[in-house]
Amino acid sequence: MTIELYSFAQSGNAYKVANYLNVAGIPWTEHFVDFFNGGARTPEYRSINPMGEVPAMVDGDVTLSQSGAMLEYLIDKHGHFATADADKYEVLRWVLWDNHKFSSFVGPCRFMMNFLPEEKRSADVIGYLSSRVKMSLDILNTHLEGRKWIVGETATSADFSCCSYLFYDEPFGMDRSKYPHIEAWLENIRQMPNWKHPYDLMQGHPL
Amino acid sequence: MTIELYSFAQSGNAYKVANYLNVAGIPWTEHFVDFFNGGARTPEYRSINPMGEVPAMVDGDVTLSQSGAMLEYLIDKHGHFATADADKYEVLRWVLWDNHKFSSFVGPCRFMMNFLPEEKRSADVIGYLSSRVKMSLDILNTHLEGRKWIVGETATSADFSCCSYLFYDEPFGMDRSKYPHIEAWLENIRQMPNWKHPYDLMQGHPL
Repeated sequence: MTIELYSFAQSGNAYKVANYLNVAGIPWTEHFVDFFNGGARTPEYRSINPMGEVPAMVDGDVTLSQSGAMLEYLIDKHGHFATADADKYEVLRWVLWDNHKFSSFVGPCRFMMNFLPEEKRSADVIGYLSSRVKMSLDILNTHLEGRKWIVGETATSADFSCCSYLFYDEPFGMDRSKYPHIEAWLENIRQMPNWKHPYDLMQGHPL
Repeated sequence: MTIELYSFAQSGNAYKVANYLNVAGIPWTEHFVDFFNGGARTPEYRSINPMGEVPAMVDGDVTLSQSGAMLEYLIDKHGHFATADADKYEVLRWVLWDNHKFSSFVGPCRFMMNFLPEEKRSADVIGYLSSRVKMSLDILNTHLEGRKWIVGETATSADFSCCSYLFYDEPFGMDRSKYPHIEAWLENIRQMPNWKHPYDLMQGHPL
């Protein structure tokens, strides 16, 4: 039985897990969720994830949402990109930071700027979310100066979590010329064997 | 050497850790951060936490930010409110959900509605954040129906994380009459020995 990932290509949170599974070479099956047309709100989908979140992952008896929990589960089970014991809390701290302060603003900002119908967009909200995105980009760029990976000497779940939304080309308030250390780090991830862009890895909504 | 927590009473993220330390009976020292007047942006504070986050925690050689990482560290070290092995990913999933989908919107919404000068508030942004808060309150309330705690039969870091902002009395877009299962669960937490309201537990900005 392979791991089943409920996803769509536009979801950076889904890409955190799909990217990990792909470069780690762990077999998985993709289930496209028609998120933009209510596919996460159907009774069928709610029976997998009552919160209506994408991604969701099913591995035999285990069903999870939240990409950070999936990454920890997969790393515990398969061992690829495992964290050194000494780095445990530092890696967790960055995964939480990503969910709390970074992807939580990049994701909604990109959604409103690109996928929400124009009449539902708010300049105030985009301005607010963009300012949070920029603060977090500054923190990440400063941290990555002189580092190849976020924590320690190898890639960890912190890298898979924090990088994910940054591979998308749609605008989300990031002027890439201002973040050279982030760009160098993204290139380290692109150089992983078999790495794929999210739109080449998962089925998505038409662009 | 006791644990040092850099905090201020208005910070729900600080309260996640302070509440845990207090009800677990673990000795700790409080350092007030004058957050509203730039206290998290000083060079001194940045030497403890370069991200400028509150809370930060120092325990001997270990310095952490992100309340979820602190809770995991403290539970690993002290054992109070430890998670059963079978519940590991489920507890992590809820801590991540809190950081990703709940506190990340409750905190900024409450800040803008109550602590930001009126001329800097945006009705559009408050409306946006409130709508995210309400979606998450619905998810949590539904989950808590028939449950005493979020995961399993005892309180875990999932409870300490998710409950924190909900003990504040300032408005943040929650009509408490609509969430009876949340209110019953908060009462379970209030009944813990030695439980204290955040404003009775930490030094804060004058209200």
